[in-house]
Amino acid sequence: MNKQVDFQKIGSRPVRPDGVDKVTGRALFGADFQMSDMAHGYILRSPLAHARINFIDTSAALEVKGVLAIVTGRDFPNIGAGQEAGGEGGGDMKDIAHNVMARDKVLYEGHAVAAVAATSKAAADEALSKIEVKYEALPPVMSLDLAMQPDAPLLHETMHTKGYDTQPDKPSNIAQRSLFTRGDVDAGFDQADVIVEGEFRTPTVHQGYIEPHACIANAGEDSQIVIWCSTQGHFDVRNSVAAVLATDINKIRVIPSEIGGGFGGKTTIYLEPLAALLSLRAGCPVKMTMTRNEVFRASGPASATRSVIRIGALQDGRIVAMKAWLAYEAGAFPGGPTLPGAMAVFAPYDVDNFHIEAFDVVVNKPKVAAYRAPGAPQSMYGSESLLNELAEKLGMDPIEFRLKNAVDEGTRAVYGPKFSAIGLKACLEAARRHPNYLEASRKKKEGHGFGVAVGFWFNVGLQSTATVHVNQNGSVTVTEGNPDIGGSRASMALMAAEELGIPYEDVRVVVADTDNIGISDVTGGSRVTYATGMAVIEAARKVKQDLCARAASLWNVEPEMVSWEQGCAVASPGVNTEAQPLTLAKLAASAPKTGGPIGEKASLNARGAGPSFSVNMAEVEVDKETGAVKVLKFTAIQDAGKAIHPSYVEGQMQGGAVQGIGWALNEEYIWDEQGVMLNPGFLDYRIPVASDLPMIDTQIVEVPNPGHPFGVRGVGETPIVAPLPAVCSAVKPPAKSSTAATTPSPIPHIM
Amino acid sequence: MNKQVDFQKIGSRPVRPDGVDKVTGRALFGADFQMSDMAHGYILRSPLAHARINFIDTSAALEVKGVLAIVTGRDFPNIGAGQEAGGEGGGDMKDIAHNVMARDKVLYEGHAVAAVAATSKAAADEALSKIEVKYEALPPVMSLDLAMQPDAPLLHETMHTKGYDTQPDKPSNIAQRSLFTRGDVDAGFDQADVIVEGEFRTPTVHQGYIEPHACIANAGEDSQIVIWCSTQGHFDVRNSVAAVLATDINKIRVIPSEIGGGFGGKTTIYLEPLAALLSLRAGCPVKMTMTRNEVFRASGPASATRSVIRIGALQDGRIVAMKAWLAYEAGAFPGGPTLPGAMAVFAPYDVDNFHIEAFDVVVNKPKVAAYRAPGAPQSMYGSESLLNELAEKLGMDPIEFRLKNAVDEGTRAVYGPKFSAIGLKACLEAARRHPNYLEASRKKKEGHGFGVAVGFWFNVGLQSTATVHVNQNGSVTVTEGNPDIGGSRASMALMAAEELGIPYEDVRVVVADTDNIGISDVTGGSRVTYATGMAVIEAARKVKQDLCARAASLWNVEPEMVSWEQGCAVASPGVNTEAQPLTLAKLAASAPKTGGPIGEKASLNARGAGPSFSVNMAEVEVDKETGAVKVLKFTAIQDAGKAIHPSYVEGQMQGGAVQGIGWALNEEYIWDEQGVMLNPGFLDYRIPVASDLPMIDTQIVEVPNPGHPFGVRGVGETPIVAPLPAVCSAVKPPAKSSTAATTPSPIPHIM
Repeated sequence: MNKQVDFQKIGSRPVRPDGVDKVTGRALFGADFQMSDMAHGYILRSPLAHARINFIDTSAALEVKGVLAIVTGRDFPNIGAGQEAGGEGGGDMKDIAHNVMARDKVLYEGHAVAAVAATSKAAADEALSKIEVKYEALPPVMSLDLAMQPDAPLLHETMHTKGYDTQPDKPSNIAQRSLFTRGDVDAGFDQADVIVEGEFRTPTVHQGYIEPHACIANAGEDSQIVIWCSTQGHFDVRNSVAAVLATDINKIRVIPSEIGGGFGGKTTIYLEPLAALLSLRAGCPVKMTMTRNEVFRASGPASATRSVIRIGALQDGRIVAMKAWLAYEAGAFPGGPTLPGAMAVFAPYDVDNFHIEAFDVVVNKPKVAAYRAPGAPQSMYGSESLLNELAEKLGMDPIEFRLKNAVDEGTRAVYGPKFSAIGLKACLEAARRHPNYLEASRKKKEGHGFGVAVGFWFNVGLQSTATVHVNQNGSVTVTEGNPDIGGSRASMALMAAEELGIPYEDVRVVVADTDNIGISDVTGGSRVTYATGMAVIEAARKVKQDLCARAASLWNVEPEMVSWEQGCAVASPGVNTEAQPLTLAKLAASAPKTGGPIGEKASLNARGAGPSFSVNMAEVEVDKETGAVKVLKFTAIQDAGKAIHPSYVEGQMQGGAVQGIGWALNEEYIWDEQGVMLNPGFLDYRIPVASDLPMIDTQIVEVPNPGHPFGVRGVGETPIVAPLPAVCSAVKPPAKSSTAATTPSPIPHIM
Repeated sequence: MNKQVDFQKIGSRPVRPDGVDKVTGRALFGADFQMSDMAHGYILRSPLAHARINFIDTSAALEVKGVLAIVTGRDFPNIGAGQEAGGEGGGDMKDIAHNVMARDKVLYEGHAVAAVAATSKAAADEALSKIEVKYEALPPVMSLDLAMQPDAPLLHETMHTKGYDTQPDKPSNIAQRSLFTRGDVDAGFDQADVIVEGEFRTPTVHQGYIEPHACIANAGEDSQIVIWCSTQGHFDVRNSVAAVLATDINKIRVIPSEIGGGFGGKTTIYLEPLAALLSLRAGCPVKMTMTRNEVFRASGPASATRSVIRIGALQDGRIVAMKAWLAYEAGAFPGGPTLPGAMAVFAPYDVDNFHIEAFDVVVNKPKVAAYRAPGAPQSMYGSESLLNELAEKLGMDPIEFRLKNAVDEGTRAVYGPKFSAIGLKACLEAARRHPNYLEASRKKKEGHGFGVAVGFWFNVGLQSTATVHVNQNGSVTVTEGNPDIGGSRASMALMAAEELGIPYEDVRVVVADTDNIGISDVTGGSRVTYATGMAVIEAARKVKQDLCARAASLWNVEPEMVSWEQGCAVASPGVNTEAQPLTLAKLAASAPKTGGPIGEKASLNARGAGPSFSVNMAEVEVDKETGAVKVLKFTAIQDAGKAIHPSYVEGQMQGGAVQGIGWALNEEYIWDEQGVMLNPGFLDYRIPVASDLPMIDTQIVEVPNPGHPFGVRGVGETPIVAPLPAVCSAVKPPAKSSTAATTPSPIPHIM
């Protein structure tokens, strides 16, 4: 629990150290590196969504002048299934290996079939055109509805559905079935006075990070490979590349560049093992970058989903039964965000009877990747929309209704554990008092709609390492292993400055590569300010302890007679009247004679990441003629535990809102019947731009997380969850039945 | 003291991890980096050795297309004197600032006057030709003899000689006088039966590293500057660049490249602050490299010296008086290796009466830099040559004679402290038994000469930091802050492998930049395997302790019931019969549930670097017609304390011998009367190549250093000391009077 109530630095809003470099283009992103004698790598991608590869001939391509190496699936080692990849992306390493380079089948349009390293793009283009591939076309499986049919064409001929008590006797495109249930859901519905039910679909969308994937690999002749790349988790890149190439992790060093957005999409690998293998073959560094077209066609979007949800309540507003049937597209290989989606769908509510069944389904689309709160926006789109409908049917205010059923400290979550202190009720209370809510409640304008919804994300802890080194002049270098996406350099500097009692400007925060810092898990799960921050605080506390001991040795008193106050070592009163407070700068200057360099390290596997809840409100104007929707006001309220740097918390809330609004209104992959993507570019795949949106109003709620010394809880993912149901509830005509399915089809298990 | 006598890895000879990359050219040296939008920096250098700069106009040069920025002395801040630079190079920061870019005077031919950043070399060349500089020529001071004359032209008009009891009333080119004395040297000489005296001169020589200086600086718009460069001490580069640019050290990050030789010459800065300032002005990264010509003319060679030495002994061989007058050229700014040279001159000998007076003298030559055992080869050239003469006059064997006077454990060194265990006598004994010595003693061939000499170096400790991280698969990453010059990656890996009981191949050693590791002093002073090795050992021991604690928690026993044996945690017999030994790989795999990542850090200021002594023997053939000298055999015997990797110790001994032989026979800067260097290239400045020399025979002696857990003492510098007197004694006709001074001149203080 947060005992240090009077923060001096925490909660202030200094400029982030990487800010100027990033807005002026000086920061070095993935594609900004170059090396001497560097070759360029390009990928031949499948034009078909589903086909068998019967033959590849690269001999003519290898003759092209300037071509240094060509690799295809047969150049990669065969690795067995069963090795789980780390990070938010997850997945089986064999699948990841087959995703980065097709072997005997291509499973989506854009699937890599061969890669060329050449001294110029012209040479590479000519070589790519001379690689002969003979495909045997297979029928593409482009929807959940088709994929889940018992007689659907199979992507993986030997894959059986996991998650049933007995293994199904027939292979299937359904990779896994998951079930979460408690109480007696049928009895609950029997008891209910009002029941609502709806079917919901979400399309395939992309994270839309501005920076395409990029890397350089330089494989030394003794097989040590250095990879520079844009990633959310360089330790995971190291693990995954080592697995795909069947080499040891200590043969690989991964250096993260600055990252131009990731949102979960840069938690896995695409180019890195190809560049590494090409570099090994070509004997020189190989740089690879994706075009935007390739990013859309061959990196990991978010799952398209279909869900059917049913909720029953008593007349007094008490929810008595919740049921969900959820299907997630995994793309070409298993591993969609089915589990977190299923666990999140009813997470904000205290309900005795529920039944959640979820399916992970492969289709001939790019393998999905994590996207901010993976799985939750899709499932909670349905549940939160239905809750608004239910409130309306009950004649209750939607916030009042939610408050009545909201989880709180001590409630057992639908997904298992009991909640510690959480901020859902505080967010709902804040929403109820918010001017935008009061205004919307007062007057209803014709053509305007208003929607409210709750968002939720678990947040994770995982492993982090940090060192705090004191420089000769008393300035401080904090080294950690998480790429800075949302301002984590600033928040680490604030936390170190707070602990040490020194100015924010005296702390420099560095993101270290896999060789320069201990294991640091992915920048994802909204974990960095929480878990890596804890490591920074722990290391800073060790430094303070050492500084006090050094001051004690200089004063010739016992260490316990010295304390650290306002950036100085201070002797207890009366202990040594000569002992003037020693600043960090003075102690740093005397370090050579008090034991050498001052610095400490902390490593941890953080436990106690508190979940973050949000309440979002959308006011929209709908042009009934054209269907055009204009978002007039959007309000994001969220519990941050303790906002280390409020501006960057607000930035997360605003960014998540914008992405959620884009998902709700604009964004969608479109494929033709053969599975060829028709809109692989930002002109046709429309993400919201500044002029599309109002300023997103934010309000930070602070219910300290007892699992962090400053009360921090993750804030990065929750913001994308509520915009879908909030906007859709605002757009949807009130008190009508549920959203119609675009393709009516049987709902296998809901009843 | 070395308690661990049975080493399993230490003393073996595995291939160094950076070896293949370095011999195949894949390793990235200073000039091998590139960046997007990078400009190139070039320097306008003074054609005069001594002149006042009356005027510089860069306006025409700035108009040249492609020129992005030009800086001259007036673009640098004025920093005050008195701030001492760290590192083996040392010197006053104001002098360093004025050395990297001339202000109102140029002090040597090649002194930087302006620097240009341009998009091409052609543009830069044109710009350099258009910079107008008006010089007022002053008489160049090109010798110690001229410089020390009372009426000599002055390089620094306000500089007075330090080191006298009262400040001299007149400015001088003599920067400092140092005095070391004990006993009554005159009484000693009165007592002596035999006295020898000689005058000796050594020329200016260069370290001759293969890789010229190179760097890239990239100054962000918020004034954070990243510098990639080839250096022996990136923390010192950080300090020095910060001082020259009057900025904070935490605004600078220095990333060391692989280094193609340094030998002390890369312990200071030349290009780095210019590239940084050009980058700040140009708004893009700026790369600068020196040509070989620039390396000779404008980097730091070793001091030319003049010395007069007198030694007296009793008929029984006991030395009773030693006197030395030593003058060292400092180059254009004060700070030659006068002190260590003076402290080393009689260091191997136990003598009651000595008087050593030494002078640091500025001349119009490039500011000298450290060169392997700085100052000692020059002074011990004289003392060791004279000792051979004295032995001959006494009719004693030169080794016998030295053994009679050699220092040993407990002897108080001429330079102050008492020796702990040292290997001088062991080396002399080894020499006396060596086949090459026995053979040379047996037969004297006409035209052949044989010489023997002792070498010595203090060795230093200084500050080092290291971390030892355990990867997920049980492999280990060791991170430290010293560029690998002589195989330190291999020796660190061996020490970590020894401590942890794992294969050498499982340890990867990484050289971290200033942001990624705690303060790590220069790779110099023969300190790295000793001091940084101690930090690695300390960190590895902490890791072992943590591993035992984790095993104990898995077994649910007390930590003290677990020990680390042969790479495994082992429970004490009977404690827990279920507890099978846990390998590092198993403990690494379970780390997430036993507390998170495994890794430890150690920082220290190492005390107890033991001095290293050597005995060298040279057999030469002299063509009396031409004076050509051929080295037939060269034997290097040296105390390594404990040789962690014997091959790389032998490599140091061989490399030092070759450089010393080159110094003795071939190498010399030649200037014309105006102070223009006439041989700035390897064609005219002749360093020995493989075909010039025999294989250098080596013999490692091991007298463990009690100040290191494995007994290590530094080995890198001692090898260059003895070759000068050994070779010169072999060449010199025996039993003649001392070497004649080439320019007879008064010896101010010897009598």
